[in-house]
Amino acid sequence: MITITRRVEFSAAHRLHNPDMSDDENRRVYGVCNNPMGHGHNYAVEVTVRGPLPKRTGMLMDLKDLKEILQKTIHGPCDHKHLNHDVPALEGVIPTAENLAIAFWGWIEPELKVYPGVVLHQVRVIESRDNFVDYYGPGAR
Amino acid sequence: MITITRRVEFSAAHRLHNPDMSDDENRRVYGVCNNPMGHGHNYAVEVTVRGPLPKRTGMLMDLKDLKEILQKTIHGPCDHKHLNHDVPALEGVIPTAENLAIAFWGWIEPELKVYPGVVLHQVRVIESRDNFVDYYGPGAR
Amino acid sequence: MITITRRVEFSAAHRLHNPDMSDDENRRVYGVCNNPMGHGHNYAVEVTVRGPLPKRTGMLMDLKDLKEILQKTIHGPCDHKHLNHDVPALEGVIPTAENLAIAFWGWIEPELKVYPGVVLHQVRVIESRDNFVDYYGPGAR
Amino acid sequence: MITITRRVEFSAAHRLHNPDMSDDENRRVYGVCNNPMGHGHNYAVEVTVRGPLPKRTGMLMDLKDLKEILQKTIHGPCDHKHLNHDVPALEGVIPTAENLAIAFWGWIEPELKVYPGVVLHQVRVIESRDNFVDYYGPGAR
Amino acid sequence: MITITRRVEFSAAHRLHNPDMSDDENRRVYGVCNNPMGHGHNYAVEVTVRGPLPKRTGMLMDLKDLKEILQKTIHGPCDHKHLNHDVPALEGVIPTAENLAIAFWGWIEPELKVYPGVVLHQVRVIESRDNFVDYYGPGAR
Amino acid sequence: MITITRRVEFSAAHRLHNPDMSDDENRRVYGVCNNPMGHGHNYAVEVTVRGPLPKRTGMLMDLKDLKEILQKTIHGPCDHKHLNHDVPALEGVIPTAENLAIAFWGWIEPELKVYPGVVLHQVRVIESRDNFVDYYGPGAR
Repeated sequence: MITITRRVEFSAAHRLHNPDMSDDENRRVYGVCNNPMGHGHNYAVEVTVRGPLPKRTGMLMDLKDLKEILQKTIHGPCDHKHLNHDVPALEGVIPTAENLAIAFWGWIEPELKVYPGVVLHQVRVIESRDNFVDYYGPGAR
Repeated sequence: MITITRRVEFSAAHRLHNPDMSDDENRRVYGVCNNPMGHGHNYAVEVTVRGPLPKRTGMLMDLKDLKEILQKTIHGPCDHKHLNHDVPALEGVIPTAENLAIAFWGWIEPELKVYPGVVLHQVRVIESRDNFVDYYGPGAR
Repeated sequence: MITITRRVEFSAAHRLHNPDMSDDENRRVYGVCNNPMGHGHNYAVEVTVRGPLPKRTGMLMDLKDLKEILQKTIHGPCDHKHLNHDVPALEGVIPTAENLAIAFWGWIEPELKVYPGVVLHQVRVIESRDNFVDYYGPGAR
Repeated sequence: MITITRRVEFSAAHRLHNPDMSDDENRRVYGVCNNPMGHGHNYAVEVTVRGPLPKRTGMLMDLKDLKEILQKTIHGPCDHKHLNHDVPALEGVIPTAENLAIAFWGWIEPELKVYPGVVLHQVRVIESRDNFVDYYGPGAR
Repeated sequence: MITITRRVEFSAAHRLHNPDMSDDENRRVYGVCNNPMGHGHNYAVEVTVRGPLPKRTGMLMDLKDLKEILQKTIHGPCDHKHLNHDVPALEGVIPTAENLAIAFWGWIEPELKVYPGVVLHQVRVIESRDNFVDYYGPGAR
Repeated sequence: MITITRRVEFSAAHRLHNPDMSDDENRRVYGVCNNPMGHGHNYAVEVTVRGPLPKRTGMLMDLKDLKEILQKTIHGPCDHKHLNHDVPALEGVIPTAENLAIAFWGWIEPELKVYPGVVLHQVRVIESRDNFVDYYGPGAR
């Protein structure tokens, strides 16, 4: 198996808050991440795809294409935005790193359909040097 | 001359907006940084002090003290906050990296008064790997 | 599958030495790492847990709790210590990165028992940018 | 399972070009990476081995040995070289990160044969912070 | 004094060779950096400007403009190029980090003329984590 | 003015303790850094030299030479050592980062005497990402 990984970065604000919970429960569950006006991060997302390696090109897929897919699906909608307010595709999503990883998976995977044999393998969402999330897709056990 | 530098990090949201300018001018001047709900960064601040080196301790000043000063003056007020809304000491300040560096200088310097000979030398505010600001104090030409 | 990873750092001294081997064999096996007074590192440990993602919170487990567990089990006992002399739980352990990863696994796993569904997945011990160890637990083949 | 990873770095030039394709196709497939004189990177390679952990040493394998193997097989032939012209073992190989990972696997694996139980597990070739390739060997599915 | 610094990165090949010296002298002076086909780096350039801080904007200069200047003057001509062959403005320049810093200064400074009060302060050329050059302009003593 | 900087790294143990102070005072002044057996760091040292730029070579000084000087004066004596016990040239020196920077200056400067015009400009000692010391020599005010 061989994989390639491409990284994209964006700067965004977010707030962790579930409207189905009371204010007290929100504060207890999310702590300072529940502060009403939100806080922010320099997010980095590392997207990994796998597949057979075409002999002719020696490239699993064109890195420029992967870069453009990440610009279009992730950087475009999320950079310099407040994830709770400015990103329609995240409406109703509590923007934890876990939920972002799952959402990004859903945004990236359809774009890869035109690349024969290329399969989305892993999405890593890095909130800071000290914590990150890895998602391996709905099919991974 | 000898200096010591201590780094502190915090995650915050901010928005660049001057209420004395029209919405159009704000958008023209600040671009995506003017988005109404703000965006965010993992900020890092590197604070440098200089002074004579006491032979007895071999330490320009106690690093634990410097760490505590930065926790109290910077991390405490700013971490997991929206800099435009949640930090009273930044009221009326447009939170550009330049203005933050000047504000932080003003917050740190009084705390150093009790350390004989220790002088605040430089405050670096790092918004991201790609841009940072250095401030050398109101007396520097 | 989804995982979250949290990083903790500590500064410590260590020496590689097996009292069951001769001095000559120790020097041959461990080289400069066998120097009698030891040397040191800024260690980083990345701890990864996996589990089902609760819809209500969107968090695999509370990151603050994971941070506190790592403070208590790793940073507290090991920071600013000599691993061969100052850490009772490491008595009799040759403090290679491999053995540290296994020890840390044993310290962290019991703390996770109170989090339903959360399973310790990986412990990475980073001695320097140039070498690190990954441990996947006694059950991994 | 336990693994150790060792990192080696080298600076090299390369050009992506397949002589079996027309100039036009080369430009379309490889873009700026096809520029005739090549460009370059500070490459980093992270090599991971797995195996049983000998109780006596607490080291999966001697890190000094692994370091020397990487110096000999990777740094020696590739550092300060043009990968298309100066590395005999890469003759006929289009030096994409994917092909380099596969080539390096082939260079490293024979060197590990003298270490009982030690198995090459993963080769990561990092071209830049923004993209890297992972290869798990010809046997991995 | 206050400064802002913006970073730009590019990947390029280069060879250190002075046609006015014999091949022997070139090899003695430049060592492996004289290899005929060149080698390469992921270069990073940090460009620092200083000036008065306009109260109205709180920005020394528009960071988007500085970013565009660096894209146009540095990234455009140098990225994915061989510095000895593909960059007309470097013709006749031995592409050491020192000479690159001086050349980049000369390319950037004219672009800043339209920004009243803004002065180019420092150009740092980073060849790798292990070595970099700082240039403070022809007027600095 | 133009400068070049070269980085060297070493792993070492140290303990902050002044034998002229009581045990109580040592603990109060140095805190956990006074733990009897010491702790350790992956130290990095960045050494900067300045001077006129020879047109013929375009190199302020030969980087290979600077690398060898740092290997000989810093890495050789300090790597994989306990700075309080194993480094004769540090006998009687309390190994704070400040004192190390001053000591390293004294070790490096004589080696530069054979390079006409080259002057030692700055020594940075980095104990961790979070704190470092800069020394500009005994002549700097």
